[in-house]
Amino acid sequence: MRGSRPLATGTRYFPLLVPESLLAKEAAHVEGFAPQVAWVTQAGKDQLEERLAIRPTSEAIIGTMYAKWIQSWRDLPVLINQWANVMRWEMVTRLFLRTTEFLWQEGHTAHRTEEEAQEETLRMLEVYRDFIETELAIPIIKGQKTEREKFAGAEKTYSVEALMRDGRGLQAGTSHNLGQHFSEVFGIDFQDIDGKRRYVWQTSWGVSTRLIGAVIMVHGDDAGLILPPNVAPIQTIIVPIWKSEAEQEVVQQAVGEVQDTLPKHLRIEADMRAEYTPGWKFNEWELRGVPVRMEIGPKDVQKKQVVLARRDNRKKEFIPAEELSARLPALLQEIQRDLFQRALAFREENTRQASSFEELGSIISEKRGYVEAFWCGDAKCEEEIQAKTGATIRCIPFDAREKGRSHCILCGTESGLKVVFAKAY
Amino acid sequence: MRGSRPLATGTRYFPLLVPESLLAKEAAHVEGFAPQVAWVTQAGKDQLEERLAIRPTSEAIIGTMYAKWIQSWRDLPVLINQWANVMRWEMVTRLFLRTTEFLWQEGHTAHRTEEEAQEETLRMLEVYRDFIETELAIPIIKGQKTEREKFAGAEKTYSVEALMRDGRGLQAGTSHNLGQHFSEVFGIDFQDIDGKRRYVWQTSWGVSTRLIGAVIMVHGDDAGLILPPNVAPIQTIIVPIWKSEAEQEVVQQAVGEVQDTLPKHLRIEADMRAEYTPGWKFNEWELRGVPVRMEIGPKDVQKKQVVLARRDNRKKEFIPAEELSARLPALLQEIQRDLFQRALAFREENTRQASSFEELGSIISEKRGYVEAFWCGDAKCEEEIQAKTGATIRCIPFDAREKGRSHCILCGTESGLKVVFAKAY
Repeated sequence: MRGSRPLATGTRYFPLLVPESLLAKEAAHVEGFAPQVAWVTQAGKDQLEERLAIRPTSEAIIGTMYAKWIQSWRDLPVLINQWANVMRWEMVTRLFLRTTEFLWQEGHTAHRTEEEAQEETLRMLEVYRDFIETELAIPIIKGQKTEREKFAGAEKTYSVEALMRDGRGLQAGTSHNLGQHFSEVFGIDFQDIDGKRRYVWQTSWGVSTRLIGAVIMVHGDDAGLILPPNVAPIQTIIVPIWKSEAEQEVVQQAVGEVQDTLPKHLRIEADMRAEYTPGWKFNEWELRGVPVRMEIGPKDVQKKQVVLARRDNRKKEFIPAEELSARLPALLQEIQRDLFQRALAFREENTRQASSFEELGSIISEKRGYVEAFWCGDAKCEEEIQAKTGATIRCIPFDAREKGRSHCILCGTESGLKVVFAKAY
Repeated sequence: MRGSRPLATGTRYFPLLVPESLLAKEAAHVEGFAPQVAWVTQAGKDQLEERLAIRPTSEAIIGTMYAKWIQSWRDLPVLINQWANVMRWEMVTRLFLRTTEFLWQEGHTAHRTEEEAQEETLRMLEVYRDFIETELAIPIIKGQKTEREKFAGAEKTYSVEALMRDGRGLQAGTSHNLGQHFSEVFGIDFQDIDGKRRYVWQTSWGVSTRLIGAVIMVHGDDAGLILPPNVAPIQTIIVPIWKSEAEQEVVQQAVGEVQDTLPKHLRIEADMRAEYTPGWKFNEWELRGVPVRMEIGPKDVQKKQVVLARRDNRKKEFIPAEELSARLPALLQEIQRDLFQRALAFREENTRQASSFEELGSIISEKRGYVEAFWCGDAKCEEEIQAKTGATIRCIPFDAREKGRSHCILCGTESGLKVVFAKAY
């Protein structure tokens, strides 16, 4: 049954263009984003009186609406998600990972209490971890961003961090506790249970098309994509093999029969094109990352079997037709699990310890990957390490304080904070 | 089984920003859209060397990609659809019907032959008619736009036209045969079967969030929205009625039981909020246009019945609980059909004949609605009629030439072309 506040939950759409005066209301926010904003200054033949930003993110425009909508504690929480394009001007772009325009979802919530906002922030971080590990088969480190790396305007930023096969770190998703930074400047207040007016506590969180880049960079190989079965648009491609017209007829019929017997929830297609050879099709579907190729030739028809070839490790198996509807779903699950395990093993191999600044520098320059090292917590040390090595603190993992005590690798101050460094995109 | 060209069909996403030089390639296209373009001229602190248009439509950017992708007749047809936001600067906006930014789908296809492109153009027009009539319950006139009203850059534009309850016409969707206008200037050519290089024939077609406005304007009344059951997010809202806590318990249990027995494909919610009265909820869900309200009170529980109240005509019926799972789906279908019939009757009542210019003018100024009248086919007459009456030719209906012959209401030239005039949004 429905809860008590149907209006404030769900998907909404807000305008693309944000007047400069709104973007500028939160000082840290505009300072952080202004260098990356694309500005609309003309419409038709007219010069606009005020510049309009193509949204780099929507806190300002959504906050403006929340100030109108939220009046009473009864209106809280507000839990709204937007699917949208955003734009952040980039000096150097990299396909899917860093593009001037990208697509994302951005959630924006408003709460009555600070505790509720913090809960929401961590709940969404966990939603992202679960999705990325379970569906995309990419292992994640959950942690908090440093003050220097946090979202412009946030109180605290948390992230899910992934390691790409080239040894670079990728921020795969973020969840921000915005505190009352935006509610105070946008005037998002409400009458509380005790009759007093208070400002709401807000969160925002997002993942983007960057995750497509992560899938490509974590699982792919020189032959092309390798898609995790859970998210592959085609999980199994059937490639028929024939030489004569007589064989073609027999094989086509067998393909049809196989398709009829397979579980309907599987995403299976058959590539029946006569103008391409089986070899060409093998390459084509490898390139596209289809997890399993099913080959059916005249001999297989005779033997009442099919060949299943895995995209990830190229292993082949011959499966009796009668076992196929049990074997194929199991195989897809095995591939999903193996992809995660392989990525996890890669991350573990490429996570190294550094007990000195020199060690950090040489690992980063020679091997990349993650480097765990103690840091004093001072932004000056963080900045200097980045300037000299190119590595940034990816996050302060949630278990950072459970890894003993040592000395900051730069300044030597005693510290109980073991953080993760990497070169990032 | 899959067809022969898997790469060229489906949903794709193209960039938001279109360099001015691309937009300008097709002369009629840029002339038509430039007055409405929002221009990005700055990024961060930098002045851009070339202005970038926020896409008013995507022929230019998609055509640029098609020129790279399409090489051979084997690559054709290309059938791509994009879901996106677009922007057309408007002097006067009207919620949902005419907004500076709107959301739409835009299909862009490329074909080997002119015939195929024309077929595709009309096929999509029919898809729109079917969707709007069947799902949105809005009666449609299919027809061709005049030269003056066609899409900037198109060879021919067809539209589906709807009549709003305030007597204004609304272009509800369009499908364009682009001929070779874009392929020639963007260089979208291919090697044909005979070895010769030829330009592709293109179409584009779209419907937008304007359709939401159409639903509001066609079906709604002074109490709020009336949503057709086929597209209502909530088809039936259950409002429980109780006075005492004992009654509340009994009614809540009955609501749960009713929900368990109803067909799962129906979209039903129960508004169990204790902080609002049943009367408040009645108004709230009427405002939101839910097609059917189901009331369950203590007496209904005793009598093993529920009350079904229609949003559209406010009729109520008492239904034995055991008949509900058959009656409710049937009632929703009746409402869907009745909404269409009511809108159709309204359109028929508001479609009038004019045999002179004066008659057209007085109908348009006094009654609005559709006016059928003969027109010579000359853009000058069309323009003068608009200038003097405010009415435009909504379309040349597909059956315009089957309605006899008479004289152009303005210039008197003999004509076999009976077209539809209206004031439009």
